Amino acid sequence: MRILVANPNTTEAVTAKLMAAGAAVADPRTVLVPMTAHRGVPYIATRADAVIGGAVALEMLAEAHTTVDAAIIAAFGDPGLGGARELFDIPVVGMAEAAMLSACMLGRSFAIVTFSGGLVPWYNECLDWNGLRGRCAGIFALQGAFRDIADVQSEKEGALVELAAKVVIDHAADVVILAGAPLSGLAQTIRDRVPVPLVDGIQAAVKQAEALVALKPAKATTGTFRRPAAKICTGIPDALKARFERTDG
Amino acid sequence: MRILVANPNTTEAVTAKLMAAGAAVADPRTVLVPMTAHRGVPYIATRADAVIGGAVALEMLAEAHTTVDAAIIAAFGDPGLGGARELFDIPVVGMAEAAMLSACMLGRSFAIVTFSGGLVPWYNECLDWNGLRGRCAGIFALQGAFRDIADVQSEKEGALVELAAKVVIDHAADVVILAGAPLSGLAQTIRDRVPVPLVDGIQAAVKQAEALVALKPAKATTGTFRRPAAKICTGIPDALKARFERTDG
Amino acid sequence: MRILVANPNTTEAVTAKLMAAGAAVADPRTVLVPMTAHRGVPYIATRADAVIGGAVALEMLAEAHTTVDAAIIAAFGDPGLGGARELFDIPVVGMAEAAMLSACMLGRSFAIVTFSGGLVPWYNECLDWNGLRGRCAGIFALQGAFRDIADVQSEKEGALVELAAKVVIDHAADVVILAGAPLSGLAQTIRDRVPVPLVDGIQAAVKQAEALVALKPAKATTGTFRRPAAKICTGIPDALKARFERTDG
Amino acid sequence: MRILVANPNTTEAVTAKLMAAGAAVADPRTVLVPMTAHRGVPYIATRADAVIGGAVALEMLAEAHTTVDAAIIAAFGDPGLGGARELFDIPVVGMAEAAMLSACMLGRSFAIVTFSGGLVPWYNECLDWNGLRGRCAGIFALQGAFRDIADVQSEKEGALVELAAKVVIDHAADVVILAGAPLSGLAQTIRDRVPVPLVDGIQAAVKQAEALVALKPAKATTGTFRRPAAKICTGIPDALKARFERTDG
Amino acid sequence: MRILVANPNTTEAVTAKLMAAGAAVADPRTVLVPMTAHRGVPYIATRADAVIGGAVALEMLAEAHTTVDAAIIAAFGDPGLGGARELFDIPVVGMAEAAMLSACMLGRSFAIVTFSGGLVPWYNECLDWNGLRGRCAGIFALQGAFRDIADVQSEKEGALVELAAKVVIDHAADVVILAGAPLSGLAQTIRDRVPVPLVDGIQAAVKQAEALVALKPAKATTGTFRRPAAKICTGIPDALKARFERTDG
Amino acid sequence: MRILVANPNTTEAVTAKLMAAGAAVADPRTVLVPMTAHRGVPYIATRADAVIGGAVALEMLAEAHTTVDAAIIAAFGDPGLGGARELFDIPVVGMAEAAMLSACMLGRSFAIVTFSGGLVPWYNECLDWNGLRGRCAGIFALQGAFRDIADVQSEKEGALVELAAKVVIDHAADVVILAGAPLSGLAQTIRDRVPVPLVDGIQAAVKQAEALVALKPAKATTGTFRRPAAKICTGIPDALKARFERTDG
Repeated sequence: MRILVANPNTTEAVTAKLMAAGAAVADPRTVLVPMTAHRGVPYIATRADAVIGGAVALEMLAEAHTTVDAAIIAAFGDPGLGGARELFDIPVVGMAEAAMLSACMLGRSFAIVTFSGGLVPWYNECLDWNGLRGRCAGIFALQGAFRDIADVQSEKEGALVELAAKVVIDHAADVVILAGAPLSGLAQTIRDRVPVPLVDGIQAAVKQAEALVALKPAKATTGTFRRPAAKICTGIPDALKARFERTDG
Repeated sequence: MRILVANPNTTEAVTAKLMAAGAAVADPRTVLVPMTAHRGVPYIATRADAVIGGAVALEMLAEAHTTVDAAIIAAFGDPGLGGARELFDIPVVGMAEAAMLSACMLGRSFAIVTFSGGLVPWYNECLDWNGLRGRCAGIFALQGAFRDIADVQSEKEGALVELAAKVVIDHAADVVILAGAPLSGLAQTIRDRVPVPLVDGIQAAVKQAEALVALKPAKATTGTFRRPAAKICTGIPDALKARFERTDG
Repeated sequence: MRILVANPNTTEAVTAKLMAAGAAVADPRTVLVPMTAHRGVPYIATRADAVIGGAVALEMLAEAHTTVDAAIIAAFGDPGLGGARELFDIPVVGMAEAAMLSACMLGRSFAIVTFSGGLVPWYNECLDWNGLRGRCAGIFALQGAFRDIADVQSEKEGALVELAAKVVIDHAADVVILAGAPLSGLAQTIRDRVPVPLVDGIQAAVKQAEALVALKPAKATTGTFRRPAAKICTGIPDALKARFERTDG
Repeated sequence: MRILVANPNTTEAVTAKLMAAGAAVADPRTVLVPMTAHRGVPYIATRADAVIGGAVALEMLAEAHTTVDAAIIAAFGDPGLGGARELFDIPVVGMAEAAMLSACMLGRSFAIVTFSGGLVPWYNECLDWNGLRGRCAGIFALQGAFRDIADVQSEKEGALVELAAKVVIDHAADVVILAGAPLSGLAQTIRDRVPVPLVDGIQAAVKQAEALVALKPAKATTGTFRRPAAKICTGIPDALKARFERTDG
Repeated sequence: MRILVANPNTTEAVTAKLMAAGAAVADPRTVLVPMTAHRGVPYIATRADAVIGGAVALEMLAEAHTTVDAAIIAAFGDPGLGGARELFDIPVVGMAEAAMLSACMLGRSFAIVTFSGGLVPWYNECLDWNGLRGRCAGIFALQGAFRDIADVQSEKEGALVELAAKVVIDHAADVVILAGAPLSGLAQTIRDRVPVPLVDGIQAAVKQAEALVALKPAKATTGTFRRPAAKICTGIPDALKARFERTDG
Repeated sequence: MRILVANPNTTEAVTAKLMAAGAAVADPRTVLVPMTAHRGVPYIATRADAVIGGAVALEMLAEAHTTVDAAIIAAFGDPGLGGARELFDIPVVGMAEAAMLSACMLGRSFAIVTFSGGLVPWYNECLDWNGLRGRCAGIFALQGAFRDIADVQSEKEGALVELAAKVVIDHAADVVILAGAPLSGLAQTIRDRVPVPLVDGIQAAVKQAEALVALKPAKATTGTFRRPAAKICTGIPDALKARFERTDG
């Protein structure tokens, strides 16, 4: 089974982190296929960034979808996820979505913990989009700046453990999601220092993508998630344009 | 006062309809500035289309925002609205948002009526994004295909009157929103044939944009809607890139 | 265009504040028509006060509605608003409603800030009536008594700035509504001292009333907001009695 | 124990119906004290009527509250209930509230069935005010006019049985509330013709009022439902004015 | 009238507390019939305990239901309540349910205060099951261990008064429910030391059970709460087995 | 990896169906361990049945949990799930939960389709317990009786296809969950006759259990889902008693 790990950001170092963390839980027969955005922002932090990231994600899937069995949109917040699910025939999983749904099986309420306050509003919209407000104990972020998105995980490790432990007590969170692609892999590292189960976004997404492939869901042929009718479009990268125009066979 | 009417679709004929309907209610001193997308899809119908439309909307505002007092994202569904509100200093109003908020002042519950079933899922997400589920009597669409997006309004006039009248009775709607940029101006035409007030998206948006300009709200300097910090980006049109990178002065 | 500013309280000094703040944003061709309640309470603070205020508001509109194009119920909390919208043919706007709906276009979540804790429960009911709980970051009030309702704005200016700034940080409010007719005009004064946009109730209401008049919505002829059938009533002031009994032509 | 049955409408015949139905379930030691509004409308059907009815209800309670142990606001929709609960020291129960809360103990979801479509919008607001939307299978009304509010119960008996039976099937209602003071007593009559438990508003209210008196809840001395501070008011009937001004001892 | 007070825990001392508190408010003609679980846990604190308690509650009602007019499941959290309401023909009331519904008639928002943090998650699920999240100001518990479930009420009296008073202020609770069977009777004791009305679970349940008996609701013959069809079962105590198998006449 | 398939009903034939459907999607290295309830009801249809089933499920897990890596409570509705998650250290997955969460990744809204109307109320409570009301297009059941729970799948195959296809159109469901253990395996059979993806409960549960095992979540050591403190209990099967009393090592 081949699963695309589509990082809709331009930072290769984050893709590397995603791949390492994903590989640690993937089935031995699963091949994770990395892809880093050729255009866009170095990391998605705001709603404006996510608008760009959504378009970029569709472009990436258009290029790769015929070569994989499933795809992961590997930015917490899942830019472009709904559109991707319409356009493509393979299962597409969002990293935030997978983390939240997995967390639901580990407790009643999950907290989302991340490294920068700037991410919170976008994550809030993602939470609502998933309809999971009632399962969420809150979204919490470290205060203060960080040095480098590629190293923020080690820079902030201690502070994140502290914050996670605090929200478990103060907000009765049963599970903590460590959110943001740059934190990929951290859950395993700090596992014994937080008193509730941790969920790592990319790891959850890999397992959910594998699960969906195994379940072999049919592509919808009616309703919202059937492939849309052909529509001529302008100024859009070729592969995506072909997908919209249904000239891709 | 100058208000940008940014149609994030590529169909000029729809922009013309938007301008005509908007002009009918605009203050005499308001100048409506039309803009049609140079790239994207001819009309936004699905979530996938809206992902493209969101990115296009940001590009359009990046080009024009310094020359106007406010902007309207003139596609029902408001692609890119949240991001636009972060990036730019002027008020930005969504057509769906303006229609729904205006409708709230005309009754308890509004119905959204549109010309094509394909639009309903995207409109549903927009409704939830606005947090107005509790005020909505439902989203209803004509069945069957239409000939031409530029003429759908006259082609479907009778059917839309019938549908509107039916949902008023069956779903106790107090107000009907005629949704979709191609229906701009229709509300005035059929006003006497539907037994509750009608709301026309672009007309509501023009009045709301005028209202916001008059209220002179300060741009946030903290929190979610302050202008984001500079972020280097790649493969994005120049004006928008400059806005993200804060090299636009 | 003539807009009635109906203050359902008996304090003339508050009406004066409402008029001054409203005039600052009204279209030059708009005439704001002031009206102060002849009976009732000096200011509405509790649910019991609001019951009285609602009946008084209907009486006031019954007297004046034929002489204006729209009316504002100018007490935050909007006593009698739903009933007024049934009884009269002109658009009627509530001050709280207008403030909250306008705030929705300036951010995701608004905080409501007011000068007295006694007002909070009533405002909470108003928020729920509008179905906007999901958009509200909270309702916050100064502690402690105030000297005079007519001067509370200047007495509490510093404390209100402080409270507004605090809720922006602590509760991630994107917008702050300064609530209560006695605070009319304060938003302009303290605009530069709060780091997010402020909304002034009467100013929002004036612009929304102007917008509705421009949109020319038809009066419902069916459903909830059609004018009710004639009903004989007893012990009610003449103009309102005539309106209920449909003897007013 | 003395319980005031305050009918905030002017129709004595309805008060008689309320008294008969209430007496059928009241404790033998309970004295039900009837009171019919001296002013207002013959029956409350719309939001506008309810605004009047709320003020009238406060006036009625102001006159009688010292002579009873509890009071019932005996119009389905409970006009003025929140304000009454602030102003007076005795327990005050609303008829709709009591019916809905009692119904919650007889099943998961209750339907509200009434004799006139005109009542539905006001009942909907009452449902939301109580926060019980999630427990309600819907509000349903007979179509068509009725002859006389005092006799509507017998006129519509067959149609109401049919409607109740239908909503039980179509909307999976576990309980049916027969709503509206003019239907008082009907539940007993048609009990064997509807396949789920019925709730009669005044009967539920009498039992809830008795229950609250037995539980001897303290009057709040802080927060929302403490008695409000004295406030000078104008143009309000004497007993109510004295209550607001705290000159009533 | 005979009302079963079924304590689904094995602690007789708690049953004694329930009886004493219930008797203090019961109608003089009401006979409260005590029953303590023969099997199960000494007190229900967690979801796992509640699973056991639910089965035990059904067994207890199966034994006693023909000898009483109504039954109370006398553990806060109401284990087995829905199932009991299906299986038996008499009214069945939950202690938590009765407390919460009664509290709704004493204010807008109730706080639930209890003696041990371990109870909070289960109570939270009970709150949601009742659909009353919107009426609840929060569930609050003392920190720290207690000595003996039978004496926890006196041991913690002072701390509970303090906690109740604090949540009234900090969370704007209009009413406080003292939750947990071991606290039965405490409300009367501390009534004058908390500034809002208190609700005692067993007292509320006794009054609600009396009310339901007086209202004489018919047993559903269709839908969710009709008695289920006969179903052969295995390894279940005789009386309950007979009830499931409908061999009990 | 060993996964317990705990069928809390007494019908062996249903366990066989669960095993066959589960095996069809399980990883080749996964061993599914079947277990059928020794006591209880032949199939769980009502809330009362579910109360019994919850206790039985805990007993089954107490017997087997040390011999497996994860467990599935294999009755749609997930009796005892919350309690099981507290008591045991291994991941425990509910069949309904797994189906609903998996469905969330295949569309916006899922419909639940089942073979008997009697199951709907219990499934509704399960849906609310999971907090997924906003994602559900409705719960739909065939009308009429069925012959034999073990064969209902083939008996009703055609009718279920028809019902599924209908709800896709009428209620805009993006995904259909075939609910109830007796329908295990049906999704694969009818996959090509329903125009949206189908979810099979046991198959989803097997994949989610595998996923959770791979993610290696730590058992909570604080909060709601830590193992409860030892509690002496009475009249409970030995293995479960030992687990409650913490005498099981």
